[in-house]
Amino acid sequence: MKHFDTDYMEGAHPIVMQRLMETNLEQTPGYGTDNYCLEAKDLVRKACGDEHVDVHFLVGGTQTNSTVIDALLSRHEGVLAAATAHINVHESGAIEATGHKVLTLPSHEGKVMANEVKTFIDDFYADDTYEHMVAPGMLYISYPTEYGTLYSKAELTKLHAICQQANIPLYIDGARMGYGLASDAADVSLPELVSLCDVCYIGGTKVGALFGECVVAHEGWLKHFFPLVKQHGALLAKGRLLGIQFATLFSDGLYLQIARHAVELAIKLKEGFRKKGYYPYINSFTNQQFFTLPNEVIDRLRLTSTFETWGNRGETETTVRFVTSWATREADVDTLLHEL
Amino acid sequence: MKHFDTDYMEGAHPIVMQRLMETNLEQTPGYGTDNYCLEAKDLVRKACGDEHVDVHFLVGGTQTNSTVIDALLSRHEGVLAAATAHINVHESGAIEATGHKVLTLPSHEGKVMANEVKTFIDDFYADDTYEHMVAPGMLYISYPTEYGTLYSKAELTKLHAICQQANIPLYIDGARMGYGLASDAADVSLPELVSLCDVCYIGGTKVGALFGECVVAHEGWLKHFFPLVKQHGALLAKGRLLGIQFATLFSDGLYLQIARHAVELAIKLKEGFRKKGYYPYINSFTNQQFFTLPNEVIDRLRLTSTFETWGNRGETETTVRFVTSWATREADVDTLLHEL
Amino acid sequence: MKHFDTDYMEGAHPIVMQRLMETNLEQTPGYGTDNYCLEAKDLVRKACGDEHVDVHFLVGGTQTNSTVIDALLSRHEGVLAAATAHINVHESGAIEATGHKVLTLPSHEGKVMANEVKTFIDDFYADDTYEHMVAPGMLYISYPTEYGTLYSKAELTKLHAICQQANIPLYIDGARMGYGLASDAADVSLPELVSLCDVCYIGGTKVGALFGECVVAHEGWLKHFFPLVKQHGALLAKGRLLGIQFATLFSDGLYLQIARHAVELAIKLKEGFRKKGYYPYINSFTNQQFFTLPNEVIDRLRLTSTFETWGNRGETETTVRFVTSWATREADVDTLLHEL
Amino acid sequence: MKHFDTDYMEGAHPIVMQRLMETNLEQTPGYGTDNYCLEAKDLVRKACGDEHVDVHFLVGGTQTNSTVIDALLSRHEGVLAAATAHINVHESGAIEATGHKVLTLPSHEGKVMANEVKTFIDDFYADDTYEHMVAPGMLYISYPTEYGTLYSKAELTKLHAICQQANIPLYIDGARMGYGLASDAADVSLPELVSLCDVCYIGGTKVGALFGECVVAHEGWLKHFFPLVKQHGALLAKGRLLGIQFATLFSDGLYLQIARHAVELAIKLKEGFRKKGYYPYINSFTNQQFFTLPNEVIDRLRLTSTFETWGNRGETETTVRFVTSWATREADVDTLLHEL
Repeated sequence: MKHFDTDYMEGAHPIVMQRLMETNLEQTPGYGTDNYCLEAKDLVRKACGDEHVDVHFLVGGTQTNSTVIDALLSRHEGVLAAATAHINVHESGAIEATGHKVLTLPSHEGKVMANEVKTFIDDFYADDTYEHMVAPGMLYISYPTEYGTLYSKAELTKLHAICQQANIPLYIDGARMGYGLASDAADVSLPELVSLCDVCYIGGTKVGALFGECVVAHEGWLKHFFPLVKQHGALLAKGRLLGIQFATLFSDGLYLQIARHAVELAIKLKEGFRKKGYYPYINSFTNQQFFTLPNEVIDRLRLTSTFETWGNRGETETTVRFVTSWATREADVDTLLHEL
Repeated sequence: MKHFDTDYMEGAHPIVMQRLMETNLEQTPGYGTDNYCLEAKDLVRKACGDEHVDVHFLVGGTQTNSTVIDALLSRHEGVLAAATAHINVHESGAIEATGHKVLTLPSHEGKVMANEVKTFIDDFYADDTYEHMVAPGMLYISYPTEYGTLYSKAELTKLHAICQQANIPLYIDGARMGYGLASDAADVSLPELVSLCDVCYIGGTKVGALFGECVVAHEGWLKHFFPLVKQHGALLAKGRLLGIQFATLFSDGLYLQIARHAVELAIKLKEGFRKKGYYPYINSFTNQQFFTLPNEVIDRLRLTSTFETWGNRGETETTVRFVTSWATREADVDTLLHEL
Repeated sequence: MKHFDTDYMEGAHPIVMQRLMETNLEQTPGYGTDNYCLEAKDLVRKACGDEHVDVHFLVGGTQTNSTVIDALLSRHEGVLAAATAHINVHESGAIEATGHKVLTLPSHEGKVMANEVKTFIDDFYADDTYEHMVAPGMLYISYPTEYGTLYSKAELTKLHAICQQANIPLYIDGARMGYGLASDAADVSLPELVSLCDVCYIGGTKVGALFGECVVAHEGWLKHFFPLVKQHGALLAKGRLLGIQFATLFSDGLYLQIARHAVELAIKLKEGFRKKGYYPYINSFTNQQFFTLPNEVIDRLRLTSTFETWGNRGETETTVRFVTSWATREADVDTLLHEL
Repeated sequence: MKHFDTDYMEGAHPIVMQRLMETNLEQTPGYGTDNYCLEAKDLVRKACGDEHVDVHFLVGGTQTNSTVIDALLSRHEGVLAAATAHINVHESGAIEATGHKVLTLPSHEGKVMANEVKTFIDDFYADDTYEHMVAPGMLYISYPTEYGTLYSKAELTKLHAICQQANIPLYIDGARMGYGLASDAADVSLPELVSLCDVCYIGGTKVGALFGECVVAHEGWLKHFFPLVKQHGALLAKGRLLGIQFATLFSDGLYLQIARHAVELAIKLKEGFRKKGYYPYINSFTNQQFFTLPNEVIDRLRLTSTFETWGNRGETETTVRFVTSWATREADVDTLLHEL
């Protein structure tokens, strides 16, 4: 059985595992104060092209979103996000659990539109009763989005300008950031992406690490972050595990290289479907591919592969999602296309 | 200047004030343990036609919503409500501040539709990933709604049945309950309304009291409510002030009688506008009336009256709201209509 | 039966009630935006001798503490307070419900000692693991304390200096502030008290108002306080009720005058007990008096009076509390002393 | 340099690492729904001697405490714990961040005394004002404690009986559980420990795992735990990593065997110090050893070893802590004793 359900079905990239093995019996102090974390932070800063950014390592995505958003918002503020955003749908209310409302904007294949963000903020302050309402205190976007789509540099530039004008931070959830940056459709590099937001996180769990997310923040945004990470239960005792993993991923261009692999196979998969006459439900250029397929095709493919239904099963056809990762084998994609 | 902005612009009904004066120097124990509160609870139970309901007095509406909803939900649950619900829009995130998400449903002139509630709940549990999402833990509706509309007995019966099937409570925000029950369009009495929900509150602040809301709950729903009220800062030291007010409002039919006055004037106002050719924006049968008027008419009326803009001012015409209350004088409505 | 249980057993001072009656049918906008609130704020500023302080009106004490403390603390911070502080004992966890820890200091008859505050802060930052601990983010004291005791000007000066050095605010819970300031033992005036703290509240509920507390804050401390008050359910719709009450209390010296009455009777009561050979448990110079009395004396007094047991009833003697208020009649104190 | 700072300075036990390597490229579904987790749960149930307990895997200790305590408490309740408890001191207010107060009891070398627990609960309900106070909703203890001490079976039996009488759960923080159970001083087995509490967690992070804690709960206590784990950011995407680790630790007695190693070295260390005339500060029979040593001895030892200061450095002597783990080498202990 071949698995295209998601991009966290395997362990870590073999080089990452090897480094964890090599260092396994070394003794280091806890909580990210070790040299591996220092090294990894330096490597991330270099990859971001900015020596002044703060770098923090956390364990998982929901945890990172909840901790960062809690750090960025005042008590009377909420977070602007697309209605389809992970924080609004699939985090069991982790944001609300810290006391903050998710203020939803229309989702355009997972993306928010700059003019709609601006209108929301303008309308908010134009309302006489705005002090009785939750103030937009930051903007959350994902890159790539939950639908595999990407913001262009022009879009990011506009969003950032609107945020700066409103004096609120722009935060990018990069759970799958590698699969965005490695796409041919991306017109930003990592340094550009970092320079176009205030805080972001570079996803490790889905891009080669056993687990781990790397928060990158411009100075001044994440004050007193360490105790907040601890308070959120997000501080790993053996912090060096995160340092070792990210140091490895950000050495020799490994992070983007393995992401590139996944994206290439995703595009091969998309083209393969296209050639058979199945057009994508969303034209994604990253590692998630969506198709609306006849149910009998789905049932046939499921004899040899697993993949997720996107929404509910329809009467005759259903939208499904295929996900590749750094670990996907080309032979498995070939088999899938052959079965098609 | 005549004021039609809202229904909390005056103090209390004169009989209520008189009772507060008469009892002012009596000494009673605090926190609602006094005899006036006991008497008021008995009177409310009688008015509700149910000797077994729990009755609690709180100070204000946002506070009551936040405390009751916090009491009813488990940590992993959210509250279903119309997108236009007061708790979703105008309570500064009070619900989220206690850790709970507001799960929004489409608003139909302020109302939720039973089939949409059912579909939300069914879809939720049909979703493979529902344990990663906020579970619908209760349903919030307002009676009348923020748009002055009313649920029919048939609608309430359906909503309650859906909630019972889903094993979640139905909670009615009755900030303006009197103005609903006193309307000719209402086809439920207070006892019927209470029997068709699990918890509700009977609004005092907007219906004759200086301040105060009266929570009515069927047995078993509001466990350990007293310490939670205290924790929410909603426990009035001189609790007897609430007891005296509600005992007065629920003696001699005062509550519905004064509400009836407001509704009659609202209908007179609506009919007056109609006769001049201005048709209501929403056909409300309660104390809030909405019209979309030419801006020059609005500007003219504003020379002698105040009232709120509903949404933003348009280029040529704008929707506005006129609110009557127990204290509105018929002469003021006549003046308004005359100026029209 | 005479009642010495507490100082919130009656309604409001007759002049306050009269003003509420006189203004009852006036129409004003809601939420404290009316002219009575403006006037009251001016009068409070004058009484505080500082035209630049921010003034806000809330309804009750627990609510005020919870809202102010939530406004002053960052998420990783807690509030320093005596172990006996109201916020630590009798607010049903209202502080923790907003996510903050109460960091307790030893109580010396309800007071904290400056050197112990300093040691706590110094030790905290000297601890290698302090980032895993809750940081002291503010200091809470009460004036008078829950035991009726008062801080001297020298003590307040020291506490404020320590807070300023640590860059944290000093907050004074003044639920009974009048009864402190009106005491012969007080060596600070209201302007001095205000100048020696960063935020405080002047209690109305226990000192002549029906309800209401008046927060006074030096500029910059209570940012975005309005939406936070709303979020806490502490925003009174008919805000003018608070404005009218505090404008009355702060006209013609009423607040201190009525507080003085209570304190004089409390001292008379204390001296009366002393003359009969009963020495105070705590030498309070404010409106709360504590005595450890033989149980048979207590039982005898309870035939004609009510008062609280302080702690548990002992085998042969028990500590009890007698409280006077603006409403206490001298004849009742005389009767009590006569029964003694 | 030899390190005795703590028990999380290395990676995982080699057999655990080997299993992670072997399974690294397997594809499994996420969030703990894989077969490794199922297998691990079965093994843990067997080790606990109870087929009916619920088993859940989380990532770290603070996270586990915060999530479990949040699941067990109602909003008006707090958690009873020794003043020295990890949740009260070293979790950056994680418990309060979820809205709950830590109700502290005197610490007796890290332990609470049954009669003091009982007195706290009895006094609470005897207090007339208990509904204004935070109710004791559960009892937290650690096994071993933060001071390396152990509860006897008799003590646990008493504590559990008191909790059952009060109808509140007893929760055991077993971050170092292995080092307690493997001690000669322990008079309970794992099945006995589990039967004497309602919920506990078996620590992995400090006892052979890379990371991971295993929650064991008797039926009915942890309702809707999955979404709460997600909400707390404690749900690991690659849940199988936890399953693989705990399946390994609970195969062939590995968990207790490697814990035994640490305890034996700790006792050797203690005896070595004793022979040189240094008596333990606390007579610990687990993997943490405390001594008050002359500062010159400490400074000398620090030339070749690292270890933590316990409290502040004294003028002439200071209390320090030495910790062994599954990874400690006997040669390192010998070197330390030789340097002594």
